[in-house]
Amino acid sequence: MTTPLRIGIAGLGTVGTGVVRILQTHGPLIAARSGRPVEIAAVSARSRAKARGVSLEAYAWEDDPVVLARRADVDVFVEVMGGSEGPAKEATEAAIAAGKDVVTANKALLALHGHVLALAAEARGRLIRFEAAVAGGIPVIKALTEGLAGNEIQRVMGVMNGTCNYILTRMESAGLPYETVFEEARALGYLEADPNLDVGGIDAGHKLSLLAAIAFGTKVDFAGVDLEGIGSVTIDDIRQAADMGYRIKLLGVAQMTGRGLEQRMSPCLVPATSPLGQLQGGTNMVLLEGDSVGQIVLRGAGAGSGPTASAVMSDVIDIARGSRVATFGQPAATLRAVRPARAAVAAPYYLRMALVDKPGALAKVARVLGDSGISIDRMRQYGHDDATAPVLIVTHKTTRAALDEALAGFDETGVVASRPVVIRIEEV
Amino acid sequence: MTTPLRIGIAGLGTVGTGVVRILQTHGPLIAARSGRPVEIAAVSARSRAKARGVSLEAYAWEDDPVVLARRADVDVFVEVMGGSEGPAKEATEAAIAAGKDVVTANKALLALHGHVLALAAEARGRLIRFEAAVAGGIPVIKALTEGLAGNEIQRVMGVMNGTCNYILTRMESAGLPYETVFEEARALGYLEADPNLDVGGIDAGHKLSLLAAIAFGTKVDFAGVDLEGIGSVTIDDIRQAADMGYRIKLLGVAQMTGRGLEQRMSPCLVPATSPLGQLQGGTNMVLLEGDSVGQIVLRGAGAGSGPTASAVMSDVIDIARGSRVATFGQPAATLRAVRPARAAVAAPYYLRMALVDKPGALAKVARVLGDSGISIDRMRQYGHDDATAPVLIVTHKTTRAALDEALAGFDETGVVASRPVVIRIEEV
Repeated sequence: MTTPLRIGIAGLGTVGTGVVRILQTHGPLIAARSGRPVEIAAVSARSRAKARGVSLEAYAWEDDPVVLARRADVDVFVEVMGGSEGPAKEATEAAIAAGKDVVTANKALLALHGHVLALAAEARGRLIRFEAAVAGGIPVIKALTEGLAGNEIQRVMGVMNGTCNYILTRMESAGLPYETVFEEARALGYLEADPNLDVGGIDAGHKLSLLAAIAFGTKVDFAGVDLEGIGSVTIDDIRQAADMGYRIKLLGVAQMTGRGLEQRMSPCLVPATSPLGQLQGGTNMVLLEGDSVGQIVLRGAGAGSGPTASAVMSDVIDIARGSRVATFGQPAATLRAVRPARAAVAAPYYLRMALVDKPGALAKVARVLGDSGISIDRMRQYGHDDATAPVLIVTHKTTRAALDEALAGFDETGVVASRPVVIRIEEV
Repeated sequence: MTTPLRIGIAGLGTVGTGVVRILQTHGPLIAARSGRPVEIAAVSARSRAKARGVSLEAYAWEDDPVVLARRADVDVFVEVMGGSEGPAKEATEAAIAAGKDVVTANKALLALHGHVLALAAEARGRLIRFEAAVAGGIPVIKALTEGLAGNEIQRVMGVMNGTCNYILTRMESAGLPYETVFEEARALGYLEADPNLDVGGIDAGHKLSLLAAIAFGTKVDFAGVDLEGIGSVTIDDIRQAADMGYRIKLLGVAQMTGRGLEQRMSPCLVPATSPLGQLQGGTNMVLLEGDSVGQIVLRGAGAGSGPTASAVMSDVIDIARGSRVATFGQPAATLRAVRPARAAVAAPYYLRMALVDKPGALAKVARVLGDSGISIDRMRQYGHDDATAPVLIVTHKTTRAALDEALAGFDETGVVASRPVVIRIEEV
């Protein structure tokens, strides 16, 4: 096992240069831990001339990542370009066809094509590893795939988009509206080129679909994720949720139900005193629940050069050490297709609405809820200066179907002045 | 890889029966994930007749764990008896000599004999795995050895004895003295037969020494752990620390310094709002800090049948999957011997003392601190009815040597009425 493991790195942005930096700094340490040296054979990026703060002289250069992926001196193809289609996909396919193992940070690629890619890799006895694709430096893929492998997983949850968590915590701490903080985040460079990947929950949804595949032994089903971004979260809801002891998080939840696999990525209320509730800024947190282990909480940096490169190196060192765990924890051919179950799991809900200020309005709303079998845990009516009264309701656990029935019923009361805001309360 | 992996379980207490239960419940799931069935070949315990709530009929029985360890039909010897000497050690040695891999939950055995056992195992191409030995169900050995393998580890910290954390949080929440809560914990069965293993910090110190060996590539050095138990923590200190924004935790810290490896397991103050500060009851928390990844926090159940058996199964499944990571993350023969550095890292300290109530007393104490180069961050004097005034001081960062000099200096002032309580404040 003293033959070096040679990697080819496609993409020299934040993550790629982070990987180069680790290998240049910690070569002997990594060799001691891997049982063999890990070397960079070749690199590839769009611009060769760009200054990156690391020396690339010792490595072969390829303009085309597909050519890099096929090089005879590359054992492991490290894909850190990003993008679900185009060069990242072509080069990954080329690497697999050429019999290379693949390490990738690309959640979009795997969320959309991971099953087909894993089948192709496994048909050739190769691996795809993707620790860096979910929750940055937190070793959550490893914890779930290996650390909790003796458990039937019951639920996977997490705050997995640091930008959204930054926006939500900044709205609360500074008392600023969404639009203002969104522009701040853009100016700070926190947002993807297409901001909807972040604030629309797509990036976090990609990650959730990968965790769910491992957790439940199912085919990756990003299309089955119930997606809702943070764009409709208002500072009023943040304040009033806080008043009820909650914080709003863009929370991903995956769990198997009697009706199929439920995957949700949406703004949720969590207790302000819970680990999730206390998560500030760009940090990520993932909760894994297994039948034997109970709840495991993992927390750390969800992005950035060092953390993401650390996760890439974890996969590379695993391969150097001879680990051959299947991409999704079991052979891709054995992953089950399950139908998506939307809103199958009952939960308490937070409702905010404006009631027309006339006698009996609140009673009418309460009756509609009762008629739909929904009982009220707490209700607050706030002082007001205009013709409508702000009302907050926290329900006991109910199904989304019952809630939708009640929401339709509100329309008929004639006392609900605006479409109610509805936010699920996740029990953590 | 469809040959079953056959395990022999020595010890059928909480953990051993937990392992049996997982394999009886999740056989197909584990086979799918492992790529091969995992089967129990034989079991061993002190009493065959004892009711354990699981059926053992399908397995061969051995009265002697050494005989179990040598059985030809056992591939992996699972040692969940406990104890650093006697049968656990003999059977582990026998298993290694017979060419078996070993999975153990035994922190005491490995803290005292781990290096020699790992050398013996590696000489025969065998593994010792011990996820269950540290922080119960939290996959912290895996996170450190594999997930953070690309990092130079800077610091490892943790609350790793749930009983001590239970006692300290219960003292605070119920306002009860140590002795009362200690007796409660004993009545609840939370304490080891020798309670000093828990409250003396020995059990947690064992765990810390194992984490340090992996983190820093050094020989396990339990004797080098600076140990201090929680027996001297008073309800006054808990209250007054809270008043200053801190909580007291039995905290393990390991870090490499210019003077050697510092390993401490002692009551420390941590910010009440930090993840460690908010850890309640029997839960464990480990913080891993690496140069690339930053700080990773892991939290979960530190004990109990399910969580500990989950960790055992993680190791067993790793072996079934073909993982061959060395016991301490690199070959035992390459682990360095380093000298222990006691109190090498500077820190702020909390001091509580009673001053004789006469003019200039506080000034004298402040002058002694200043003469030792220690500056004061905050000081509080409390109202009092007797002849001495309770005084709290939080210093800025200082060395333990400077602090010891100041403590000696206090004696000469004639105004410090009792030996000051000194608690390190750990920056988390």
